[in-house]
Amino acid sequence: MSGVDVLITGITGFVGTVMARRLAAVGLRVSGLTVDDVVSVEGVEEGGVVRLDILDLPALEEGIARVDPRVVVHLAGLAHVGESWKRPGDYYRVNFRGTRNVLKAAAGRRVLFASSAEVYGKVPESEQPIDEERLLDPRSPYAMTKACAEDVARERGAIVVRSFNCIGPGQAGRFALPSFARQLAAIERGEQEPVIRVGDLSPKRDFLHVEDAVAGYEVLIERGEPGRAYNVASGVAVEIGEALDRLRQISGVMARIERDESRVRPVDLPLLCGSTKRIEALGWRREHDLDEALAALWRTTREA
Amino acid sequence: MSGVDVLITGITGFVGTVMARRLAAVGLRVSGLTVDDVVSVEGVEEGGVVRLDILDLPALEEGIARVDPRVVVHLAGLAHVGESWKRPGDYYRVNFRGTRNVLKAAAGRRVLFASSAEVYGKVPESEQPIDEERLLDPRSPYAMTKACAEDVARERGAIVVRSFNCIGPGQAGRFALPSFARQLAAIERGEQEPVIRVGDLSPKRDFLHVEDAVAGYEVLIERGEPGRAYNVASGVAVEIGEALDRLRQISGVMARIERDESRVRPVDLPLLCGSTKRIEALGWRREHDLDEALAALWRTTREA
Repeated sequence: MSGVDVLITGITGFVGTVMARRLAAVGLRVSGLTVDDVVSVEGVEEGGVVRLDILDLPALEEGIARVDPRVVVHLAGLAHVGESWKRPGDYYRVNFRGTRNVLKAAAGRRVLFASSAEVYGKVPESEQPIDEERLLDPRSPYAMTKACAEDVARERGAIVVRSFNCIGPGQAGRFALPSFARQLAAIERGEQEPVIRVGDLSPKRDFLHVEDAVAGYEVLIERGEPGRAYNVASGVAVEIGEALDRLRQISGVMARIERDESRVRPVDLPLLCGSTKRIEALGWRREHDLDEALAALWRTTREA
Repeated sequence: MSGVDVLITGITGFVGTVMARRLAAVGLRVSGLTVDDVVSVEGVEEGGVVRLDILDLPALEEGIARVDPRVVVHLAGLAHVGESWKRPGDYYRVNFRGTRNVLKAAAGRRVLFASSAEVYGKVPESEQPIDEERLLDPRSPYAMTKACAEDVARERGAIVVRSFNCIGPGQAGRFALPSFARQLAAIERGEQEPVIRVGDLSPKRDFLHVEDAVAGYEVLIERGEPGRAYNVASGVAVEIGEALDRLRQISGVMARIERDESRVRPVDLPLLCGSTKRIEALGWRREHDLDEALAALWRTTREA
């Protein structure tokens, strides 16, 4: 396949699969790259998902040239803050060098790069919601790789997307809310004693339904300004513990909460809340609230 | 002053001061930048040291344009692995963004960038000494900032210098050997009980006399290939504990050793030893051994 509209790196991931389906639904031709075995993604024609490591620059250049996309959305990357303290070298290679490879291989095309709200670091409550002009202050190896890659991406005219906490169906179980949902489902099935093991529940995060997040990407694909950064956020911060309480209510499963020290991260940011002004100026609006996202997460986790 | 031969960023630092003196001694005109208050450096004409923050790009551009150097040697940066775990945001800003600023402001000039052996990460003993073609595997926030900055520097045609552990007079006391030397001097003066507090003494490091390291930079200023990385190393690895024993012998001060857990770093690399083949091919040879470096360190610490 050649002359596609959008090529998605990391297409088999949590955000990538939603994006492929949504873009196809509005009539766009979508192709994608993945390091996984999966070769079929909803919304992509047969043969449109190519298995390829973005660290292999010649293969990447060939892969991108072959499908000749109008837009490249670079989602592929390692995404776990806690894990990045243990594997900084892998995070450097995949997130920084991998992004540099994608930018090289996609030179001359419109590129969106998925950065993260984590690049903002520890911001005083009085200065939140955080706007995009804020000086970056990465506080973890993960955040450092994103901050460094962002600089390179913006210089090369990519549109930078600073995603806050996406939630919804299909997210990996090592993230907080999907882990809680899986534990609740296991408790409901009688496979686990009625105890949910948690890390630090006090941080406040800006949770956004993955459908809204991808809708943000869609707006930026068409109208984002090259070299500019955009928050994709809800504008509302909720304690992780509060989100867990709502998830318990939605599930109807009775369970008590137990703190597990191995789940507590070395550094955590007490509050992350993003300003949505810049992306709203392009016409984006949030359409789902946290309860809808949690309900969707619960439904799909239970059925899995 | 205008039309200088070499502009050194971080000129008031440990390596910068030695470099300024040595370059001036061979007849080169040297200028420098610093964030410190110090305004006079041996080897630099009056007014040749400018106080300036490399994070201030317009000031940096003006500062470099004004002295119009043939070569820029970028040494300025935060250099402490242990501290970088506590202040990753500062390390990102100074080491990554600061380097990008220097590269931008020095565009079109010959640039050397001081990276670090730490970018190699944890390398099996059987694959040491480490050569420059090795895939980078940074294991600390410090090493990540250097690895990311290196990529950008090489792409822009800078010569990258991967310094192993420089030692000699004038190094800050929070590094291991200078800290030991200061403690020995304090014990000799009767200001400290005869106990040296140490971190982990088992890592093996490739120590190089700062005069040899700067001689390496001099060779690279003239003959280094743009876009290439060069180790500046001794090619010999010595346990930190062994170096401490030799320092005790040189000093003649009796003291016992006590492990201080606060000095033990979260991650350490058991062995770092650099191949010197590439820089030796340009004519560089090591001229001083570890004992000479330790003797110089001891002499100047005692007199300070």
